[in-house]
Amino acid sequence: MNLILLGADDLLASDHARVTDPRRLRHLREVHRAAVGDEMTLGIEGGLIGRGRLERLDAEVAEFSLRLERQPPAPLDVHLLLALPRPRMLARSLEHVTALGVKHITLLHTRRVEKSYWQSPELKEEKIHQHLVLGLEQARDTIMPTVTQETLFKPFVEDRLPGLMAPESAVKPRGIIAHPGMPQECPRAVSEPVILAIGPEGGFVDYEVEQFMKAGFEGVHLGERILRVETAVTALLARLG
Amino acid sequence: MNLILLGADDLLASDHARVTDPRRLRHLREVHRAAVGDEMTLGIEGGLIGRGRLERLDAEVAEFSLRLERQPPAPLDVHLLLALPRPRMLARSLEHVTALGVKHITLLHTRRVEKSYWQSPELKEEKIHQHLVLGLEQARDTIMPTVTQETLFKPFVEDRLPGLMAPESAVKPRGIIAHPGMPQECPRAVSEPVILAIGPEGGFVDYEVEQFMKAGFEGVHLGERILRVETAVTALLARLG
Repeated sequence: MNLILLGADDLLASDHARVTDPRRLRHLREVHRAAVGDEMTLGIEGGLIGRGRLERLDAEVAEFSLRLERQPPAPLDVHLLLALPRPRMLARSLEHVTALGVKHITLLHTRRVEKSYWQSPELKEEKIHQHLVLGLEQARDTIMPTVTQETLFKPFVEDRLPGLMAPESAVKPRGIIAHPGMPQECPRAVSEPVILAIGPEGGFVDYEVEQFMKAGFEGVHLGERILRVETAVTALLARLG
Repeated sequence: MNLILLGADDLLASDHARVTDPRRLRHLREVHRAAVGDEMTLGIEGGLIGRGRLERLDAEVAEFSLRLERQPPAPLDVHLLLALPRPRMLARSLEHVTALGVKHITLLHTRRVEKSYWQSPELKEEKIHQHLVLGLEQARDTIMPTVTQETLFKPFVEDRLPGLMAPESAVKPRGIIAHPGMPQECPRAVSEPVILAIGPEGGFVDYEVEQFMKAGFEGVHLGERILRVETAVTALLARLG
């Protein structure tokens, strides 16, 4: 962890924090080899980042005095619509995209998503939260992404997608669907907000691509190479960002 | 596997191949659910790609008749100098970068690489080869990358790097070192050959950065977020490509 992410429960005062969970205590001891007096980077979930001094460390508790003074890094203004990948790939993809600064993730059912994936323990709220925390700690960010699960494709594209594409009080986003064989290359350094749709292994079916096109999406490709979902997600976000 | 990669041993004739190893036979049965008469994509290591018809499939052997007619996808003209990551990260990074089309990979020792990583079984030739094959099968490519191991930093930068940067019979490459805090953003869509240096977790030390600068490298960053090596590698290759 390049940043120790403090929740509301960890704060004793605005300049004083206490960490008691075994994962972070172990990491402080075994990876940071921390000792009282050490300075490290901390941040408050949803808030500022800064430095903290380790004031106490024993088997049950680590205490820090805090000087938080700067904003977290700018988010990546991409809402990711990701066809639900298989569980192990989901876990890693959540960490990658959180580290890259995505703040809105919708996990979507499509024809070629195996139905059993929706039963995976990786989809439980606390498991997803763990991966988001790891991504934030890695990238020194404090703003937790939201993750929405859409287990039915049709109601999502018909009822919710139009609202995402035409928000009442924000800049209209650019919809982009990444799909092999599309005529246009993935655009680079896009300045407006993006909604990016990425299919499952095996891709979207034609009907699904048509639904996105009807909703105003542009189809793009990343070349003739077929990439694993986690590679494709990172590559697409790096191009767009 | 989106392509069945045939080695010289698998070819009975230029239009006839036989696969006998358990991994591919299992994959054909369990993932492809292949049956005699099925058409699939095959390619010859170092050579052409095309379609094959499954002529025989039993517990020990799969036989194909071949119609190979097209070139593999264009390589990505990036020589990757990667500080040796920890073993699990190495395995995945090799698959990502092979799928993305990198053909020259140098694994490099730097100050912050743990020495024990060089003893990992993941560095054995056959293990590395497995990951390269998985990357090629994923991306439908046939050109095997070369992987070189440089266990001493100084002899590499002093004796070998100048030759890589000024090849006698090829276009002079652009050297790029990715390192947090560098003034310049990672360039996009670079048309010339690139030698890309990426540090370990914890980064290059100042001395190492200076050595690359002396060798003519430009320092670039990917923003203020700190990324895991495997995320950074994919993101940098996607920007450059």
